[in-house]
Amino acid sequence: MAEPTIGFISGTGPQGRGLAMRFALAGLDVVIGSRSDERAQGVADELNEIAAKHTKAGGPALRHMRGMENKAMVAASDYVLLTVPFEHAETTMEALAGDFKEGSVFVDVTVPLDFSKGDCMVVVPPAGSGSLQLRKVVPAGTPFLGAFKTLPAHVLEEIGMEMGCDTFVFGDNKEAKQHFMKVVARIPTLRPVDVGGLSAAATVEGMTALAIRINRRWKMKNARFHIVGRDE
Amino acid sequence: MAEPTIGFISGTGPQGRGLAMRFALAGLDVVIGSRSDERAQGVADELNEIAAKHTKAGGPALRHMRGMENKAMVAASDYVLLTVPFEHAETTMEALAGDFKEGSVFVDVTVPLDFSKGDCMVVVPPAGSGSLQLRKVVPAGTPFLGAFKTLPAHVLEEIGMEMGCDTFVFGDNKEAKQHFMKVVARIPTLRPVDVGGLSAAATVEGMTALAIRINRRWKMKNARFHIVGRDE
Repeated sequence: MAEPTIGFISGTGPQGRGLAMRFALAGLDVVIGSRSDERAQGVADELNEIAAKHTKAGGPALRHMRGMENKAMVAASDYVLLTVPFEHAETTMEALAGDFKEGSVFVDVTVPLDFSKGDCMVVVPPAGSGSLQLRKVVPAGTPFLGAFKTLPAHVLEEIGMEMGCDTFVFGDNKEAKQHFMKVVARIPTLRPVDVGGLSAAATVEGMTALAIRINRRWKMKNARFHIVGRDE
Repeated sequence: MAEPTIGFISGTGPQGRGLAMRFALAGLDVVIGSRSDERAQGVADELNEIAAKHTKAGGPALRHMRGMENKAMVAASDYVLLTVPFEHAETTMEALAGDFKEGSVFVDVTVPLDFSKGDCMVVVPPAGSGSLQLRKVVPAGTPFLGAFKTLPAHVLEEIGMEMGCDTFVFGDNKEAKQHFMKVVARIPTLRPVDVGGLSAAATVEGMTALAIRINRRWKMKNARFHIVGRDE
């Protein structure tokens, strides 16, 4: 595979914007998707402007981000990342399932959360986790990965802030997972950690709820995970 | 409460031994429980000898650990920690439920895991997590906490190794949880992190399975969690 194209389904929210800029600053080809082509291009322009101020001397050149309507973006991408709120995830994927190109890989970034009881609770959909639920509406032939679920949108979008943490990657296709982990590792100080198959999703999604609870107790917005025991 | 007594139900395994030594080295009163009084005293003697070699100059004096039969230990302890394999947890607690003293607190350290499929999977008991399952057999009036679930027994027992990580604490009694977190914080470089009520148990138990998967992939035995975002 040549340099892969990374597309974001509805990449106009904080999570998509943050990841898009970090990938583009690492020199990767990024496409922002949106239901509106105009909106997608507007956000891409905006992100190109912000990211340009954060290129590092001696580092890779910022690769110009493009904007496209979601369907065209899915058809053009090697990795398709879903960065919508979970309540829209199933219907969004049903509408786009026919647009995946041969050989592309789906990456679920969503987490089903419930804030209604004054606390942050992870929601367990009938299939056992958000990812297992979405697996049903992503084409069976498209490898399904999960990544970035525990990363605070606040940190992702604060492009001047170092990630300085781990991200847990799982999936139902080992080869696709290994390739994607190499792509993820190009974001400085973000270490991809392989946690196995889709059965890991329930725990990883639960960890997002724990991080949000910790944020609330510690009155901060950037709680994230780091595995101790290696390289320190 | 004066200096609390910390008792370990079947504290003769690696987890119990490791935690017992670390608490005793922090100056806390520790009682090792076992089904046999003789075995409990034998392990306590052994641990006193090992721990004595690890007192730190200028630090607290090692507090002599005692051994007792489980029932007597439960009756004598302010915090009762359960450190048996999960498959024995329910029957163990049914047998000891009548022995808790007024005002004592139960701390669940167990995790239901399944290694039978060549992978480490967390098991979800009917109640939704190991802790919620055990809540049914611990006296209703006894506060129920969970702690130390994600800490590798290997690290706990290697008493010369710094913990250098966080431990996630949850429970159904906020006051008991706050008090216990202060006790936990006396173990050097082990930070207690409050993750809320018993609903957190499923995720924390799942994190143990993830840590074991990470250990296997990275060919190590000491993967543990640290929350990034505060004090660094």
